[in-house]
Amino acid sequence: MNSTIYVNRLHAVQAEMNLLHLDALIVSDPQSIWYLTGIWNEPYERMYVLYIHTKAPLILFANKLFNIPKTDFQIIWYSDADNATEILSKHIKTSCTTGIDKLWPARFLLPLMSFCPTIHFKLGSDCVDKVRACKDAKEQLLMKEASHINDICIQKGFDFIRRGITEKEVAQYIDAQFVQEGADGPSFETIVSFGANAADPHHEPDNTTVKEDDCILIDMGCKKNHYCSDMTRTNFFHTAEKLSSKMNLHTAIHDIVRTANEKAEAMICPGVRLCDIDKTARDIISAAGYGDYFTHRLGHFIGQSDHEQGDVSSANSACVKEGMIFSIEPGIYLPGDFGVRIEDLVLVTKDGCEPLNHVDKKWKLISKK
Amino acid sequence: MNSTIYVNRLHAVQAEMNLLHLDALIVSDPQSIWYLTGIWNEPYERMYVLYIHTKAPLILFANKLFNIPKTDFQIIWYSDADNATEILSKHIKTSCTTGIDKLWPARFLLPLMSFCPTIHFKLGSDCVDKVRACKDAKEQLLMKEASHINDICIQKGFDFIRRGITEKEVAQYIDAQFVQEGADGPSFETIVSFGANAADPHHEPDNTTVKEDDCILIDMGCKKNHYCSDMTRTNFFHTAEKLSSKMNLHTAIHDIVRTANEKAEAMICPGVRLCDIDKTARDIISAAGYGDYFTHRLGHFIGQSDHEQGDVSSANSACVKEGMIFSIEPGIYLPGDFGVRIEDLVLVTKDGCEPLNHVDKKWKLISKK
Repeated sequence: MNSTIYVNRLHAVQAEMNLLHLDALIVSDPQSIWYLTGIWNEPYERMYVLYIHTKAPLILFANKLFNIPKTDFQIIWYSDADNATEILSKHIKTSCTTGIDKLWPARFLLPLMSFCPTIHFKLGSDCVDKVRACKDAKEQLLMKEASHINDICIQKGFDFIRRGITEKEVAQYIDAQFVQEGADGPSFETIVSFGANAADPHHEPDNTTVKEDDCILIDMGCKKNHYCSDMTRTNFFHTAEKLSSKMNLHTAIHDIVRTANEKAEAMICPGVRLCDIDKTARDIISAAGYGDYFTHRLGHFIGQSDHEQGDVSSANSACVKEGMIFSIEPGIYLPGDFGVRIEDLVLVTKDGCEPLNHVDKKWKLISKK
Repeated sequence: MNSTIYVNRLHAVQAEMNLLHLDALIVSDPQSIWYLTGIWNEPYERMYVLYIHTKAPLILFANKLFNIPKTDFQIIWYSDADNATEILSKHIKTSCTTGIDKLWPARFLLPLMSFCPTIHFKLGSDCVDKVRACKDAKEQLLMKEASHINDICIQKGFDFIRRGITEKEVAQYIDAQFVQEGADGPSFETIVSFGANAADPHHEPDNTTVKEDDCILIDMGCKKNHYCSDMTRTNFFHTAEKLSSKMNLHTAIHDIVRTANEKAEAMICPGVRLCDIDKTARDIISAAGYGDYFTHRLGHFIGQSDHEQGDVSSANSACVKEGMIFSIEPGIYLPGDFGVRIEDLVLVTKDGCEPLNHVDKKWKLISKK
């Protein structure tokens, strides 16, 4: 364990706490605790809290069942027979403003509020999330490795497609390839959508079989060494000689989405506002007449989770910083007809961005019979 | 959709709300919403709430991106540009006691509390969880199917083991078998622990290879059609002719754990207290001198999630009811040496219980070279 990394991260979080006027912070996201201490523990339904105070040492609250290595800060242990929230309430400072992890469930928060009526609670996990949003050198390497596997596996996935295959079969094949290529597994449920199913951005793969002229949308990601990848490509299943007029329309729409993706990526550099990147992509799609059919934000942050705090949307006027990694994923969805989405992850560099995905974005015809 | 099922489930929840003096209930667990409406939706980080009032019709709060079929109750839609909690606050009744889902995250609860200072909020998801704890006929069939696949795959997993294999390889093989046998995938991260690793009940499979006289603990479950299985068996890797004295001790401890499992299962019937089942198993292990090494509760409820609300522990004095399904999983863990756990799921019947797992519990020697 390189403890300098953790000390630096903690100081960065405490600096954010000062900006938000938080005296203390309850961190419950296991990924954030791992990020700040190097300790990985999956608490399931049990309470697991790292208590950060701007002027006091760290305290970790953990169930005796957790397998936690020796630390150089205090651990308060509780057992299944204890009231964990009550124990927490007895060890934290009760006259201060305390930040709460955005994900902390009501089952802990409501009892803690009863035990500590003098504490002013407010959302506080931004203090950690802002630090997590900028990946350090080691994290960047891990993110690149997960995306490299994703590049390999999406190609395998498209190569696997032939007439009569179902969405589910392709998704299961991709999941197996992730493991084959050394990942721990998918970082979210692999999306494979044929034809009109692709018009639902969150479609779950089912027994739909691929048919002539169907679009094939694959949105997939894997996880390795705690870090995630995420990418989408859309191609077409077409075995006949000529493109039909419908195909001509669909491929033209694909070109619009690709242009939106490329123009958005081209403008990324430190200092640019995230909402302006969203606007660039959205304006291109709107100008082509499909603005109403691009129904979601342009992108999301990613790291240890597929979706981390922070997004590329009209609502986010924060500025891009070096080391950030997020997705750029414009789409057009025509209900009952088809859908296209093209998604890369990008790493913000000193003066631009580096895409973590290297699979060609231009539509291709898949024609295996 | 058989709407009678959903009406009955809703009425049962409203009856529980009356017992807890709740006027309204915010249900946010997607599994509970599916259970009460038949609508399956994975909201990820977006707000998704079924608002139940004891004297008013249902309202569902959903993001416009969600793909939700037509319903016979009201849906309030919001978009990513909206403040979802504020919209929720404007549609709910603000002078009543409102139950909150135990899992609802602080990112929604704290803003809602600010918007609705006159509401008295308390934990309320027990009202749904108590109804969900007793599985109806259709759910029982699905649970049996998931456990049947688990029975097949654990056998395949043990058959796959030979000298030099790693925990990770076995876990990945089992995960692939789940899909092969028709399940959607594992219901939790498959645990394969060799030797001293088994002394950590939550060990994650790593590159440890199996060695002569190692115990092999496999704790696994799959999910199919929304319902989960979960089972543990412990065997030994032993290729020599005779058992060593260490092996003799380990197998004797295995017999103690199996006896605890069998005696606990034998006493299960409606009306018995869950804490008394825990006590039966614990007393057997304590009488043998290993009480300090049985470090967790005896079991947990299961259904759509691997761990549902409710457990078999010294702290739970609730009585067993017909239709409940939970695990019985005593264990003995000797740090640095080895561990044993034996786990079945059981379905409570009119006058006893029916184990959902049928794989032999007696220890076996795995001797493939």
